[in-house]
Amino acid sequence: MIKTIAFDADDTLWHNERIFISTKEKYTALLAEFADRDFIEQHLDATETENIRQFGYGIKGFTLSMIETACELTEGRITGAKIRQIIEFAKQMLAAPIDVLEGVRETIGELSKNYRLILITKGDLIDQETKLARSGLGDYFDAFEIVPRKDAKTYKYVLRRHRIAPEEFLMVGNSLKSDILPVLEIGARAVFIPYETEWFHERVTDEELAGKQFGRLASMRELTDWLTVENQS
Amino acid sequence: MIKTIAFDADDTLWHNERIFISTKEKYTALLAEFADRDFIEQHLDATETENIRQFGYGIKGFTLSMIETACELTEGRITGAKIRQIIEFAKQMLAAPIDVLEGVRETIGELSKNYRLILITKGDLIDQETKLARSGLGDYFDAFEIVPRKDAKTYKYVLRRHRIAPEEFLMVGNSLKSDILPVLEIGARAVFIPYETEWFHERVTDEELAGKQFGRLASMRELTDWLTVENQS
Repeated sequence: MIKTIAFDADDTLWHNERIFISTKEKYTALLAEFADRDFIEQHLDATETENIRQFGYGIKGFTLSMIETACELTEGRITGAKIRQIIEFAKQMLAAPIDVLEGVRETIGELSKNYRLILITKGDLIDQETKLARSGLGDYFDAFEIVPRKDAKTYKYVLRRHRIAPEEFLMVGNSLKSDILPVLEIGARAVFIPYETEWFHERVTDEELAGKQFGRLASMRELTDWLTVENQS
Repeated sequence: MIKTIAFDADDTLWHNERIFISTKEKYTALLAEFADRDFIEQHLDATETENIRQFGYGIKGFTLSMIETACELTEGRITGAKIRQIIEFAKQMLAAPIDVLEGVRETIGELSKNYRLILITKGDLIDQETKLARSGLGDYFDAFEIVPRKDAKTYKYVLRRHRIAPEEFLMVGNSLKSDILPVLEIGARAVFIPYETEWFHERVTDEELAGKQFGRLASMRELTDWLTVENQS
């Protein structure tokens, strides 16, 4: 019997990747005189991958990677005015309105009547906290966990901290790597709701998924029905 | 009777401000052809203050403020190579060895035998987590709380979460504003151990301190004796 439902935040409750994608578009346009779009994007992805261990996830680290890439691929010819623009992109991203995904507000509101809801997310503490506040969903959640990574050890720690038994816990998210596999590993249940795009850091192989049992829904709207069936079985 | 002792991290357990100060020196040297040191520092402090609401505390936000300041005070004449250097400063800061303050390791080791120790710190989650790991102090702590701000509400939340009564709680830190005043406000005790420098965001007025009771020690070494006296009274 599921009693606690945890949700990932970015691209599960609200659009996030979209802001990065539209910022990348502005960024490649800004550097158009130096290189073509594909080349810039590849270079940026490589820099991000290289930096993620030190910079972590989030807008500030992404922005530093954009600036580093701009300096490198222009061989230092980037102007201060353009660098200033990239910092402006960061500020716009940080201030962007939170666009809650379709069906989320109603579903979360409904589920909060019968389940304890918690939010488990990676990312920058201040970013995520203000996003939850701006989303208007904050009141539905009993707890808010920002974690440095989403592995089995972290989920175990969160469950222990909240005194939740794995068999009474469900995780809902858009990342197989972060929201589904480690949760199954600790004996809890998981529902995968893919987002419109997939983040290149989060890909998993078919072998990793072989034999794994978890829900797969097209939209958050289907979660209430899934729970009814799951709790009867 | 104090049962749980919480510690601030930066400049309470290990040197932190020093790294920012030495980075600022490298930064003003890097920009020496454009302006003098005082002017650059004032400009940087103003940018940081302006940005802190959006960027929060930590190395990445500080670095974005350094870059923004460099673009502005050079009126865009800063070179890509110099910007690249500033990003290099960030990476060096993030990788810098953790320099534990004098007396901390012995005191924490000793106190961990008789008290539950927790760490309560602002800042970036990944930064702080890796600093705790690199400090070698991690094993002494029962819990690790990264909070977006240190106000009375946050301390109340942390105490509730760990089921700690305020009268059994002591906070130890180097900031009157973040570690002492809000803790006294919730009816718990606090010990102030000033660091060699004071951070300009953290200043409090004499009026705010009037009538407030808290310990004030010159070094972490004195904490064990202070606790003996405090627990007898």
